[in-house]
Amino acid sequence: MRVILPELKELIAGREEKLIRDLFRFFDPVDVAEIWDDLSDDERVYLLKTVDIGDSVDIIESLKTGQQKEILTILPKDNVKAILDRMEPDDRADLLFALPEVERKKYLELMATEEEAETEELLHYPEDSAGGLMTTDYAYAYDDMRVSEVLKHLRKVARDFDDFHYIFIVDRDNKIKGQVSLKDLITAGPRRPISDIIDQRVVSVLPLADKEEVARVFAKYDRPSIPVVDRLGRLKGIITSDDVIDVISEEATEDMHRFAAMTGETGDYIETGTLTMARRRITWLLLLTFAGFLSGYVIESHSSILKYIIALSFFIPVLTGSGGNAGMQSATMVIRALATGGISLGDFFRILRKEVLIGGVCGVILGVATALRALLVQKNPILGLIVGLAMFLAVTLATTLGGVIPILFKKLGIDPALASGPLITTIMDALTLLIYFGVAITIFSLI
Amino acid sequence: MRVILPELKELIAGREEKLIRDLFRFFDPVDVAEIWDDLSDDERVYLLKTVDIGDSVDIIESLKTGQQKEILTILPKDNVKAILDRMEPDDRADLLFALPEVERKKYLELMATEEEAETEELLHYPEDSAGGLMTTDYAYAYDDMRVSEVLKHLRKVARDFDDFHYIFIVDRDNKIKGQVSLKDLITAGPRRPISDIIDQRVVSVLPLADKEEVARVFAKYDRPSIPVVDRLGRLKGIITSDDVIDVISEEATEDMHRFAAMTGETGDYIETGTLTMARRRITWLLLLTFAGFLSGYVIESHSSILKYIIALSFFIPVLTGSGGNAGMQSATMVIRALATGGISLGDFFRILRKEVLIGGVCGVILGVATALRALLVQKNPILGLIVGLAMFLAVTLATTLGGVIPILFKKLGIDPALASGPLITTIMDALTLLIYFGVAITIFSLI
Repeated sequence: MRVILPELKELIAGREEKLIRDLFRFFDPVDVAEIWDDLSDDERVYLLKTVDIGDSVDIIESLKTGQQKEILTILPKDNVKAILDRMEPDDRADLLFALPEVERKKYLELMATEEEAETEELLHYPEDSAGGLMTTDYAYAYDDMRVSEVLKHLRKVARDFDDFHYIFIVDRDNKIKGQVSLKDLITAGPRRPISDIIDQRVVSVLPLADKEEVARVFAKYDRPSIPVVDRLGRLKGIITSDDVIDVISEEATEDMHRFAAMTGETGDYIETGTLTMARRRITWLLLLTFAGFLSGYVIESHSSILKYIIALSFFIPVLTGSGGNAGMQSATMVIRALATGGISLGDFFRILRKEVLIGGVCGVILGVATALRALLVQKNPILGLIVGLAMFLAVTLATTLGGVIPILFKKLGIDPALASGPLITTIMDALTLLIYFGVAITIFSLI
Repeated sequence: MRVILPELKELIAGREEKLIRDLFRFFDPVDVAEIWDDLSDDERVYLLKTVDIGDSVDIIESLKTGQQKEILTILPKDNVKAILDRMEPDDRADLLFALPEVERKKYLELMATEEEAETEELLHYPEDSAGGLMTTDYAYAYDDMRVSEVLKHLRKVARDFDDFHYIFIVDRDNKIKGQVSLKDLITAGPRRPISDIIDQRVVSVLPLADKEEVARVFAKYDRPSIPVVDRLGRLKGIITSDDVIDVISEEATEDMHRFAAMTGETGDYIETGTLTMARRRITWLLLLTFAGFLSGYVIESHSSILKYIIALSFFIPVLTGSGGNAGMQSATMVIRALATGGISLGDFFRILRKEVLIGGVCGVILGVATALRALLVQKNPILGLIVGLAMFLAVTLATTLGGVIPILFKKLGIDPALASGPLITTIMDALTLLIYFGVAITIFSLI
């Protein structure tokens, strides 16, 4: 079920307060985000002022940061305050994080004291750390309570937050002792001490853990939420799986962009300006063009042999191309397996052996195909021998290098995704040409 | 906290039943999966027979499919039955799905009648559909109940499943009416009808929805679980966010592998055999090698001009390389934005305009760099003009094509990720050479 744009516009035009409010008994406010760009500023403000505060908070939370910033500047102060005070602490911190210092201060002052302090604390953590992902709105109870007391306590505080799954159990020093699922809580006898049903198998992350690490912990342990706990064992907040779903998707995007040799932040395609995008791409393009001159130099220093048998030049693109393609395949395979934990640094020799073999198999097939082409089209068996052998060697080497370079990068503390497709194809261009002319010279010297 | 391998091995060797069982009060059984390969078959069997049945089920569920198959064949029948009967229906169906017909039948017969029927039903759905992802173990209640009745009902059935977050509310025909979070349930007055606190904003997916679609729904609506509902509105099962986290990661891997021109299933790097891997790579490598011969043909048909000015050949690799790199960047950008919903087919002209501009900017910079190189190193202004102009045109065209080919693919119903890096670089090789010789001929004819 989706909010239908013309209907919503009509309801707003007719100032149908009650109908608009009722809409959100059936539609998720998230759906409004999808048609946000099609609403005028007046319509947006009217909508946010009309629906229940909970729904208007949900609408704001599901907008993109740029859209959030925009609407906050045109909404009346009272509404901004009401919305900010009720936003999820993590979403609110993300929004404020994106604002310039001055505006951030202005909004912080607008907020209720407790929310302000909460937000200030969250703003201390780097945006892509566990602390930057976590929310401070979580359900907790003390380890000396009974089941009935916990339930009573929860009923009292439940209105403060959206929803929860686990109740985190802490001692009076806020040190985490374990967790209880709501399900276990309602099925346990009310007189039992909470420590009877506590699950002590807490999987937690440190506040400064990188968000990639957080994503891996979620992927491994299959839990709906994971607590953020400092080195002293104190509960600082929790991260919920919906935030991690976004992280996993963003991380994959980041890796892909790096693999395509793009630098900088991976913003929204539509929102990002043309020049910003060009800047993200040109750094590596330029570097790789300079590196590409190396290949030119290799050809230049062998131009005498090339003049002697010009047909050698016909095979330059297919050789460098296939070398690049093969290298890109193994690099992609290994980079992705490193990112998802499918392989680790200890697997170096296993990977080396495997990629050499795969490269050899592919190299033989492509080598034969290329040799046949030279034999059938150029009718030149010597040329066939040269290009076939060069193809075999280039593909085997490319596959091997594509597989091991990302691992070496990781060993050196460099992001393996930087072993990009363009980097590998450019390196392979020069190496393939060296192999090619080397093979040609050797064979000519033998006959 | 992780299970430490030597300790566990020692405990098993000493047959320390009680200590081993107690271990899992503090360690997540998932951790055992990590050291599974380091245990002997005897140790594995002893461990699974010793720990609580719930923990042994958790251990089995967190193993890779290959490991699951292996251990089931050596475990005594009684243990296999106990484990299968208690596994999560979706994990169990995945395991049985991976088995050959005969074995699957054998295990199905071993299972309790109810579990067998449940599994048979799940096996009907394609593995990568919503039906293949869902579990049939979910909490539900009827829409004519009161809060207290729902709680009573839940306490009765809760032992049947692991954990839950929402209670799905259905009518007596199993048609979904809405959902209630456990939190709302415990905070509501016990005498209230459940319909008072029901959340009717159900976001559901169809049983045959593709898992990519499921992942997008989760990413958008930020819910811990989403019901699978058929066209008649009947509740068939639910999908939980932990399953979707795996899907999102797998989908990204699949896209990356396709982008690197690899075909077939993206299995585990270590588990997949060398020949299987070579087979995944060779199809496109071979096709693209044949396509690469086209580039050779372009050079061959211009070999007279190449013989006349051999220096033209020095720039072939850098031109084709930069064209390929630029195309790969925009293709990656657009493919990923299409996958995450950042752009849609309707944005075609916006993307076209943007990529032409980005390509133009990058093209000018790379063109100038290349022209300078020819001017400074080859001391040849005509050559500089030719290579600079060719670079500008090639990069602009490559960026544009890289941006629009994935969209055209999607419009034609082809997976945009198939507009792979290798495909685009290979196409660009031929086009760049055509541009290059075209520019050279034009300029020579003008002077």
